[in-house]
Amino acid sequence: MNADKIPDIIIGRLPVYLRALQRMAENGVKTTSSQELGEHVGISAAQIRKDISQFGEFGKQGTGYSISFLIDKLREILNVNRMWDVAIVGAGDMGHALARYQGFTNRGFRVVMIFDNDPAKVGLKVGEYTIEDTAKLVDRIRTSKIKMAMMTVPASTAQAVADKLVQAGVKAILNYAPISINVPESVHVQYIDPSTHLQRMTYYLD
Amino acid sequence: MNADKIPDIIIGRLPVYLRALQRMAENGVKTTSSQELGEHVGISAAQIRKDISQFGEFGKQGTGYSISFLIDKLREILNVNRMWDVAIVGAGDMGHALARYQGFTNRGFRVVMIFDNDPAKVGLKVGEYTIEDTAKLVDRIRTSKIKMAMMTVPASTAQAVADKLVQAGVKAILNYAPISINVPESVHVQYIDPSTHLQRMTYYLD
Repeated sequence: MNADKIPDIIIGRLPVYLRALQRMAENGVKTTSSQELGEHVGISAAQIRKDISQFGEFGKQGTGYSISFLIDKLREILNVNRMWDVAIVGAGDMGHALARYQGFTNRGFRVVMIFDNDPAKVGLKVGEYTIEDTAKLVDRIRTSKIKMAMMTVPASTAQAVADKLVQAGVKAILNYAPISINVPESVHVQYIDPSTHLQRMTYYLD
Repeated sequence: MNADKIPDIIIGRLPVYLRALQRMAENGVKTTSSQELGEHVGISAAQIRKDISQFGEFGKQGTGYSISFLIDKLREILNVNRMWDVAIVGAGDMGHALARYQGFTNRGFRVVMIFDNDPAKVGLKVGEYTIEDTAKLVDRIRTSKIKMAMMTVPASTAQAVADKLVQAGVKAILNYAPISINVPESVHVQYIDPSTHLQRMTYYLD
C-alpha cells in the first residue's frame, strides 16, 4: 500500500463504505457484494470495486466480501483500528453538541477535553468533561500527546486557535469555524460549515 | 451559464470563495486578486481563475476583482441572492445547535421550523422556535413550500424522515445522520458526519 499514490477522493469514500459495513454488521449481515454496498451508499458497484482494489484483493469472485474482514481492513487502512483522543476547542452550542455526540462510538474517536476562552465557562461541566481555559491548551494537548482537534470557535479567532493547536503538536483539525485556516503542510484540515454545504445544493435549485 | 456542464467539484468550491470574499468585504477590503483570495482559501490562483471563468469574465487583468461585484455574481450563481427557508428535523443537541447557529446570517438561509418525534419535546422552545411534531412534517413543509431541510436524527430513522421530506417537496437535504440515504435523483443530499471527516484525516496520520 503506497499512501502517496492513492487519490484523496478515494480516501474520502472509504469512511462511507466503512460506516455502511458497520451498520450492516450491526444488523447481523455477514457478507455483501459491491452491488449491495453500492445501493447502501449511492455509489456504483464498479467504483467501489475499483476503490477497494487499490488496497488489495479483499473480495472473492462469486461470494463477495466478508463484512467483518472488510471492516477490519478498512479500519486498518484508515488507522482507526485504534482509539484517537480528540480535543474540542470552543464550548458553545456546537462544542456542547460534539462533546455529547454519541456518533464517535465505534468509529475510532474519543473526546477527551474541551476548551473555551470565556472565563464564565471555564470550570463548568459539559457531560463528563470540565471546560478548561484555552490559555492552557498548548500545554495540555502537548502533554497528553493529542493529535486531533475539533474547532468550534468564531471565525475571528479560528486562525489563532489553529496556530495554537499546531504549536501543541496537533496533526489533524476538523474546523467548524466558517473560515479557511492556514496550517503547515504536515497538518490536515477538514471543514464542516453547514452554509457551505447548503450553498452547494442551492446552485441546483430553481 | 450552462448548469449541466460545470463539474460539481467546482460548484463545491464557489461557496468557499464566497465566504472568504464576504469576510474580506466585512473587513473593508474593496478589491482582491486570485492570488490573494487563493492565500485565504488555500487554493491556487490558477485554479480560482479557472473556476470563476466558467461563469464569465468577472475580473480585470491588472486590477483583479471588485469584491462586491464578485460577491454579487457568486450569490447569483449559487442562488443565494435570496433567502431560503430551512426546516430542521431532530431537536437533539445538534438540532438545537443548528437552530441557534448564527452562521446562516448573510449566507442565504433562515431556519423556520424544527420537528421532533419525541412527545416530551414537542411544544418546547428552542430559541425562538417551538418544536413541532414530526407527524405534521409533510403538511407543514408542503404548505410552507420549504425546499431545504437539515436532518439531525438517529441513523435508524433517517431514511424514513428523508422519505417524508421528499414527499413534502423538499429538494435539498443536509444529512447529519451517520448513514447514507436514498432519495430520487431530483433531490440533492449533502452529508455532515464528523467521524467520516476525522477518518479521512487519520488515514494520513501515523
